[in-house]
Parts: sequence; C-alpha cells; structure tokens
Amino acid sequence: MATDQNKFQAIISHCKEYGFIFQSSEIYDGLSAVYDYGQYGAELKKNVRDYWWKSMTQMHENIVGIDSAIFMHPTIWKASGHVDNFSDPMIDNKDSKKRYRVDHLIEGYADTLPEAEKTALIQQMEELLKGNDYPGLKKLIEDNKIKCAVSGTVNWTDVREFNLMFSTQMGSVAEDANEIYLRPETAQGIFVNFLNVQKTGRMKIPFGIAQVGKAFRNEIVARQFVFRMREFEQMEMQFFIRPGTEDEWYAYWKEERMKWHKSLGLDPARLQYHDHAKLAFYAKAAVDIEYEFPIGFKEVEGIHSRTDHDLKQHQQYSGKKMQYFDTEINQNYIPYVIETSIGLDRCCLMVLSEAYEEQDLGTPEKPDSRVVLKFPAKLAPIKLAVFPLTKKDGLPELAKELMADCKKSFYCYYEEKDSIGKRYRRQDAIGTPFCVTIDHQTKEDGTVTVRYRDSMEQERIPLASVKEMVMKKILE
Amino acid sequence: MATDQNKFQAIISHCKEYGFIFQSSEIYDGLSAVYDYGQYGAELKKNVRDYWWKSMTQMHENIVGIDSAIFMHPTIWKASGHVDNFSDPMIDNKDSKKRYRVDHLIEGYADTLPEAEKTALIQQMEELLKGNDYPGLKKLIEDNKIKCAVSGTVNWTDVREFNLMFSTQMGSVAEDANEIYLRPETAQGIFVNFLNVQKTGRMKIPFGIAQVGKAFRNEIVARQFVFRMREFEQMEMQFFIRPGTEDEWYAYWKEERMKWHKSLGLDPARLQYHDHAKLAFYAKAAVDIEYEFPIGFKEVEGIHSRTDHDLKQHQQYSGKKMQYFDTEINQNYIPYVIETSIGLDRCCLMVLSEAYEEQDLGTPEKPDSRVVLKFPAKLAPIKLAVFPLTKKDGLPELAKELMADCKKSFYCYYEEKDSIGKRYRRQDAIGTPFCVTIDHQTKEDGTVTVRYRDSMEQERIPLASVKEMVMKKILE
Repeated sequence: MATDQNKFQAIISHCKEYGFIFQSSEIYDGLSAVYDYGQYGAELKKNVRDYWWKSMTQMHENIVGIDSAIFMHPTIWKASGHVDNFSDPMIDNKDSKKRYRVDHLIEGYADTLPEAEKTALIQQMEELLKGNDYPGLKKLIEDNKIKCAVSGTVNWTDVREFNLMFSTQMGSVAEDANEIYLRPETAQGIFVNFLNVQKTGRMKIPFGIAQVGKAFRNEIVARQFVFRMREFEQMEMQFFIRPGTEDEWYAYWKEERMKWHKSLGLDPARLQYHDHAKLAFYAKAAVDIEYEFPIGFKEVEGIHSRTDHDLKQHQQYSGKKMQYFDTEINQNYIPYVIETSIGLDRCCLMVLSEAYEEQDLGTPEKPDSRVVLKFPAKLAPIKLAVFPLTKKDGLPELAKELMADCKKSFYCYYEEKDSIGKRYRRQDAIGTPFCVTIDHQTKEDGTVTVRYRDSMEQERIPLASVKEMVMKKILE
Repeated sequence: MATDQNKFQAIISHCKEYGFIFQSSEIYDGLSAVYDYGQYGAELKKNVRDYWWKSMTQMHENIVGIDSAIFMHPTIWKASGHVDNFSDPMIDNKDSKKRYRVDHLIEGYADTLPEAEKTALIQQMEELLKGNDYPGLKKLIEDNKIKCAVSGTVNWTDVREFNLMFSTQMGSVAEDANEIYLRPETAQGIFVNFLNVQKTGRMKIPFGIAQVGKAFRNEIVARQFVFRMREFEQMEMQFFIRPGTEDEWYAYWKEERMKWHKSLGLDPARLQYHDHAKLAFYAKAAVDIEYEFPIGFKEVEGIHSRTDHDLKQHQQYSGKKMQYFDTEINQNYIPYVIETSIGLDRCCLMVLSEAYEEQDLGTPEKPDSRVVLKFPAKLAPIKLAVFPLTKKDGLPELAKELMADCKKSFYCYYEEKDSIGKRYRRQDAIGTPFCVTIDHQTKEDGTVTVRYRDSMEQERIPLASVKEMVMKKILE
C-alpha cells in the first residue's frame, strides 16, 4: 500500500502550528523522541483518554479502574521477565560512538538494494536474530560492509543486548540505594494489585482491571513523531477469567475493541487485524489492531491471550498465593488473562490522521483552500465557538451570556476579532464542530447562525437550542 | 491544635480496606513512600483532577491546559536552579549506613527535651541552617549526643548536600548517554512552552497555562501516607501578567483558590492561609492554603508571586527571547508570573479526611455504627447504587434497565446480594451519595425508594426521575 510521507509531514507541521503537539524542550533544541501536548493536543488527548476510561469502566459493570505508581518494586520486573529479556541486540560504531539497533541498521541498508537482494538479506538477518546468533549478525554487517551513517566506517563493536528499561536510584541509605526502574508497561501494576482489587472490590470472575498511565522505554531509534516515543502513555485492561474460557473471551475482546475503534469515527477500511506470527512461549493467541496511517498500516492496539503466566510468575517471586476461589465450581485457581493494550499517543495520532483534510475550495478565478480536522464532536478539543458579528451593539454581551451558559457543560471558545470567515477557518484548523454567530437579527428574533465544520453549511436556529444541540452531538 | 493520630490511622486503614489506596508493590512487601490508587481511589482522584482541570481551563476563557512530558532537557533544571539548590543537608550514620535529613534528626531529638531546651536547640539549628554552616550542624548533633535510631551510635559522617531529583540515563550513544532528571515539578514544563502556547494560541496577557502531571522527589524521610510521597501528582497553573500588576493578581488568585477549596465542601474553619516567612530572593509574595488534617494544619496549595524570574532564567540559558509584545502599551517585556500549585494526592487526602466519619447509630439495647464518607456528589467515586430488593419477580430486570440508562451519564453500581441494610452500609463506606431500591411496588406505581447517604432518610420518588436527580446533584 502506498504511504504518504508528505501528508504525514503536513500533519506534524499542523500539530505544531496549531498548538496540538510540540517537540519537548524545544527552546533548548529539543529532547529526542519526547513530545509535549499543547493547548489543543492536551484536550484531545484527555478526551481520548476519558472516552476509553468511560467505555472500559463506567460502561462495564465488571471492570474497575486503578491508578498505580510508575515506581514499583524492582523484583516485579524480574518476575515479569523485563530484566532478563526486555532488550534489543545493538551494535556500536567505534569511530562515531553511535549505537544502532542491529535490525534497523541492516534493514536501512537492505532498503538501498535491489528487491531480490533485499529479500535475501532480510531473510538471513531474521534467521540469525531468531537464533540469537550475535557473532553471525556482526559478520553479516561486516560482510555487507554496512557503514555507520555518521562516521562512514565499518569499524563495529560486538553485538550486545541493551535493556530498554530506564533505571534510577531511590532511597535513604547512602551506600545501598535501590536501583528501580521506570515501568516499561502499565500492565504489571494491575497484576500486582490483583488480590487487593479482587478482595476489596468483591470482584467475581470474569472481571477486569483497567488503567491509564505513563510508561518509558529507552528506544534506540525512536521515530515517526509520537508513534514511538521514549515516554508514552498506555491504556491497558487485564480481564481475569476461568481457565478454559480464554478462547471465547479472546474472541469477545478482539471484536469489542474493534467496535471501539470504529466508534471513534474511523473509516473501517483503514482498520485491520494482524495476527502475531510469533507468540511468546506462554501466550495462546495475540492479535494487533492496525490503523492505516499516512505512513502505512501500523499497530495501535494489541489483544493478548496470556494464560496464567503473569500471575503465576508473581506468585513464584512474591511467595503470595495469586489465586481465586470460584464458588460456582468450588475450585481454587490462578485466573487466565486476556489483555487489551493500546497506546494513547498512537491513538491520538490515529484520530489526527483520520481527521486531517486539506480541501481545495477555490475556483480558477478565486483560489481558496482550507485545512480542517474532522474530529468526532466527542473528541474535539473545543466543542463550540461563539462569535459576535461585531464588537458593539450589545452583541458581545449576548455572546458572553451564551458562553457562560455553555461552558459549564463543555469547552467553548470566544472570539470577536477578524472577519467571520477567518474565524471559521481558524476553528476548522483545530477541529471545532460548531461555530455560532450572534448578529443583529439575534436581538430581534432570538436566532443565531450555526455553521457546521464538515459541510460548511449554515442555518439559523434559536439561540436557546444551541446548548442542547451541542450536548446531543457530544454524547453520540 | 489537637491532632488525632487515631483518626488518621483509621482513614489509612479504611483506604486500604475499601479499595481507595494501597501500598505500592504490596505483595513484594511494598515500596517506601509510593502508593497505588485502587478502584475507588482512582475514581476519586480522577474526579478531583477533572474538577480542577475544568475549573481552571474550561471555566476560564484566558487559561489553557497543556500536557508536557516528565522527561525534559537537563539544562532546564540548571536554569530553574534545581541542579544547584534542590537539596537538603544530610548526615549518614557510619554504623547503620542510615541517612538522615539533618533538620529531621535534630527535631526528632528536640521533641524528647523539656520545652525550654527544645526551643533553644531548634533556634540554634535554624541559625546554622540559615548560614549553611554544615560543620556547625555536625557539631550540634555530636554535642547533643544525638544517636542513630538504628545503630544507637553517635558515629556520624560530615553533613552533605543531597539533591532530591531522580536521574536516569537516556540516549543512543553508548559512551555518552545523557543524564536526565525526572521532573521535580510540573511548572517548568509550562515555562519552556510559554512561547509556543502564547503564539499558537494567540493568547493575550493576562493569560494562564495549566497542567496536571506526575513529579518526583527523592525525599529522604517520606511519611504521612500520601501526604509526602516520592512520586506524586501536581496541578499547577502559571498566570502570565504585565509587570506592575502582580499584587492585584496575587490577591485575585489567593482569593480565587480559597473559593475553590470551599467549593469542595470543606469546612471553612479547617482552611487557613499561611504566609511564607522566608521568601526566595526573586519572590514578591507567597502564601500557602492549609487544611486541618487529623494530624494538624498542613500545606495543600501554594500561591506564589514569582516576578519574571523563571522566564528570565530560561531566556538566559536557552538564548531564546521569552518576551511578549503588549499591544495595549506598545511594549516588549518578560511577563511576571503568579503561580498556583496544588498537590493532587494531598487534595485527595484532604477530601478523604473531611468526608470520613464514624457514627454511633446504636442504642444501649441495640449497638450499631457505621463509617461513612460524605463526599460531595461531584467527587464521589460511585454516584448511584441500584438494588433490586430480591433476585426474582423481574426486579433485577427493572434495576438493569435503570443501570443501562444511567451509566451512560455517571458511574453506577449494581448489587443484588445481601440485605438492603448491608448494601447501604457498603455504599456508605465508599461514599455513594444515593442508593435506589427497586421493589414490588415499583412494578405497580413506577416509584422507587431513594436512600440518602448523609441523612440516611428514605423517600419514594418516580423511577423516571432518578437520573435527573443525580445529574443535578453532580453539577452542584
């Protein structure tokens, strides 16, 4: 499928120009692979997060949310396998001191080759990776004379494992401060709280625990804007079930999560499942939900049938029984788990990609165009813009009254400068679904002009009905 | 004023027993000074956070929110002064290897002395601290023969500075990974985005930028439950103003923030201002809003008149002009800043402390009691509990219909087990303001029994009016 780097770049520029997403620490020339959400991006992200949270917890009687800390006991990451296995094979160029992920280095070189040679090289690499054959990988790089982009030399170190977890020192004992990790996923915070939540919440299987929060991975090659960052936000849910029912629940969540994506107003043609070719040894099944970004289909969410692996590991490492007594069948067991795991930042990028449209509205005589973000009303940062036609004749006062009434219920924007046309375009660019203009007729008959973002159509409706119209759309 | 350690302990136990707050990594024997929010705590915290966010951004036309990353460029913490000054004088016991904050060590010892001696010792200490006289502080500890609680010896190291920031290594260059810090406050994320937000949002002074997010401090003695944690959440707002207007805006925000606290339903008698005795050299004024916890009056929020110090520092360190052109007076200047900074976790603890009540409801013949959390409806984790009186005769079906209708708008809880009395008490303990029971009469006349948490009064109201009644209370 075709990718559209130009469109992707245009979205990135638009995000910066209109206050959605800025490079972190920009005035200090930035921090690699970290981004800040600006005034509209922060609202968009909050709306996506809240929509997920509501649909997972409030709408599901048997799913509750928690909010566990980023800092966790270091043994948790032993139990989860992250200390031993959460790493990528890396190689350093001795001249530039630049470090590369081995697969990225080889793939980058392969892209410059004719198709047949490329395929052969990639196949060789994959076999070596599968066998963890690091000397073999180094030899492959040297045999192909793959150069460092910085130094231009083939002077490489050995291939080594590099753990992706960030670590820091915590504690009050000087000589023996604890090394702890910044969590690389939120899921383990759910597993270690399984007993606390199940008991204090009197939860009966099947039930789920959801959480949203920051996670951190020291990605060597982080790229593609907010798609792969070193600091990112996850929305994860672990659904605890009776062993033997995992296929049924896996199918349920696979379907349920796809429905959720469609409910964001995404074109179904841009959504697809992608089964994992290679499963973790404990996993029974795993599938990604992919969205077609301008740079191609990419993973946004994963649904995983994880057996009782995680709870069993924590039982072994903590010495605490991670069991559930199922009164229906009079049995004790370690529950099986179906996980749904979605990246909040990717989800925002998906919503932005779907919403972004450049429209040519001109004629040969009168060229005109607009950039519009067609967010669903429930996700739009601003729901309603209120414009007095002029700054006098009591119109601003009427507009302010409408603002005061509406802003208690949803986010509104007030603007009295520039032509109405210019004001419309600015709202189009940040995705505001409705603009309302207060004019002299409003004073006569109590009607206003509502202008719809997507169709650009306008109609007169009673001032008194504006709030209800917007509320209805938000709840759709 | 009297403190009530018993009540404080009771609240901590209640938080654990009813799924509000758990010790982090509890099955691994915990992680010191880090806590996880359980199923009801996560909802409470989200409600407090959302209420703050809405009142600061949505309700203020000239304040916008951002969401900047925890990772920032390390030079930012040079500019802010945290690298050089964000530290406490510490001393280590050579036998136990235990590290103490010098002031805590001396204060702890002073508490065991008669009043006059205690006052004298504290005064000596404060003078030495003011003069950064570390040898003097060591001598004071040795002269008073202050012992380590672990080793029982007076074998101390020198007094040294210990920075409270957590650091970690980021990057792709092996020999030269960047040392970066976990932000110790969210405010700097606002300052470094000042230009981006002002320009892309076309903001006119006076305007504010708000944000909520995690911050991290390696507190040596972290204690008092979620009051002082190593990982915590801040809600901060920086209000940018024209120099010369700072006293007026300081007064405004001082009053405005106190109003906000009262709007949480707190007893005004438990709220007070506390002016800072000692100001930072750049600060013009600073005041805390304190709440009377069971352990006494303590800081929850600070309001600070910070002049142009922060922006000026960033201008100097980044080399970028942090200026604003004020069209009203045709002048370029670095804006002054009034900051409001509140701890979300403290705010939750405040709301919990205010809400917690043990009530003796019994008679000499029939002892009875309850624990009730009198949250304002807008902050309560669960807004409405729905109980079918029995599990048959179509009552659960009717109850489920009500659930389906209400849960789209707010968080509801369904329960059909145990006596109605028991179900009420469980909802009291998690602070649910309304319980509705569906009984046989409901089928006849369409009314239900609503039971109010605080008064424990019951009345029959139409089933059809339940949703509206709850919605009205939430928006109060």
